[in-house]
Amino acid sequence: MRIDVLTLFPRMFEGPLTESILGKAIDKELLDVHVRNFRDFSTNKHQQVDDYPYGGGAGMLLKVQPIHDALTFIKEDARTQPRVILLDPAGKPFNQEMAEDFSEEEHLVFICGHYEGYDERIRSLVTDEVSLGDYVLTGGELGAMVMIDATVRLLPEVLGNDESAKTDSHSTGLLEHPQYTRPANYEGMEVPHVLTNGNHKLIAEWQLKESLRRTFLRRPDMLESLEMTKEMEKLLEEVKKEEKSI
Amino acid sequence: MRIDVLTLFPRMFEGPLTESILGKAIDKELLDVHVRNFRDFSTNKHQQVDDYPYGGGAGMLLKVQPIHDALTFIKEDARTQPRVILLDPAGKPFNQEMAEDFSEEEHLVFICGHYEGYDERIRSLVTDEVSLGDYVLTGGELGAMVMIDATVRLLPEVLGNDESAKTDSHSTGLLEHPQYTRPANYEGMEVPHVLTNGNHKLIAEWQLKESLRRTFLRRPDMLESLEMTKEMEKLLEEVKKEEKSI
Repeated sequence: MRIDVLTLFPRMFEGPLTESILGKAIDKELLDVHVRNFRDFSTNKHQQVDDYPYGGGAGMLLKVQPIHDALTFIKEDARTQPRVILLDPAGKPFNQEMAEDFSEEEHLVFICGHYEGYDERIRSLVTDEVSLGDYVLTGGELGAMVMIDATVRLLPEVLGNDESAKTDSHSTGLLEHPQYTRPANYEGMEVPHVLTNGNHKLIAEWQLKESLRRTFLRRPDMLESLEMTKEMEKLLEEVKKEEKSI
Repeated sequence: MRIDVLTLFPRMFEGPLTESILGKAIDKELLDVHVRNFRDFSTNKHQQVDDYPYGGGAGMLLKVQPIHDALTFIKEDARTQPRVILLDPAGKPFNQEMAEDFSEEEHLVFICGHYEGYDERIRSLVTDEVSLGDYVLTGGELGAMVMIDATVRLLPEVLGNDESAKTDSHSTGLLEHPQYTRPANYEGMEVPHVLTNGNHKLIAEWQLKESLRRTFLRRPDMLESLEMTKEMEKLLEEVKKEEKSI
């Protein structure tokens, strides 16, 4: 996969791109990342990339010209038409389905805004407008890093044997059940006995039930869209009774 | 504000903490950040921080001991009881309200997980379990950076005059209206005439109406919880009629 990032703060990407899973994917040549400062594409003699908004208002807007020219440059250099993603708080909220969709693409371009916002005409140059969540960030850089991480870990061969892409929370539709590792007793805090008894059937049932419990207590909205087996329905009923009696 | 981060990948924070708003806040001494590798707190002779889950399952879990000891160390060194935030996909989804809540604290600690998950007993050591959104990431580091950015930009004196914390999307309850900057015509793409006419009353009305339109089209859920003035109700009715007839 090829990824181009347009940003005014290319150095922000240095740590995240060399460490952890992204660094590994680049080392294995599964991922080719180009972080570009779009100020370099400004035709203004002071390399200005922002200007005052028409009609007034606080803050500065990113101008259309440098982004337009940077995208033209990237597209001329590319084998396929890239997916062009604008990081914007007014965009569609990012989710796991979108990460899966992005992971099927050959080439992604992320445009990271800063300052108050974008000249509206920049939106006509992109394929997707995406928001990281319902909160305000200083710029689009961290959002792009998050989307790149969520996408790249889904590519074949990126995750090693120690890690698993499939059983995580949000990919099974349920939150993960509680998990424990050694020691069995840490300063009086004990591991549930069922997990140390070696009965795999009981363990699997306990894990499914506690997944349902955590999802019921914390994210009941996730249960609404879930297709449940008869066993899951039975366990969820037990959970509801138990939680009522507490 | 003081922030401690517990991570296995401290170098990931290098770029984000020196660039942009976070770097500025640190330079102005409004923010004091300590990024600590909790592997340094492992009492295991191989400095191991993870182990197999009881009851089986894919992947490794973070052990309770290194995190417990790192938190004890931080608390001994601190003037006040910190707010301790566990980054976890099963946590409460992060939002702007939480960022505002965090920004009132004197001391925040972020625990960044990696691998398959946490030993459940780690949860008993924290005050908050927070998820960045409904997507799966390789680790908690990017989530911590996002939460730090969203929180720190709300501190007094962090944002300069060029930037404004108040009028952004998600803080007014409406998505932002389209904005434009020079040139008035870029390769045939024109700025709406109302914005270049200089009539401030008409401009303000256009901006409010287009905010309502964008929110209605993209995030109708945001309108449900909004307190609307009579003018807003009238403009929203106009928007609905216009969008129906398209």
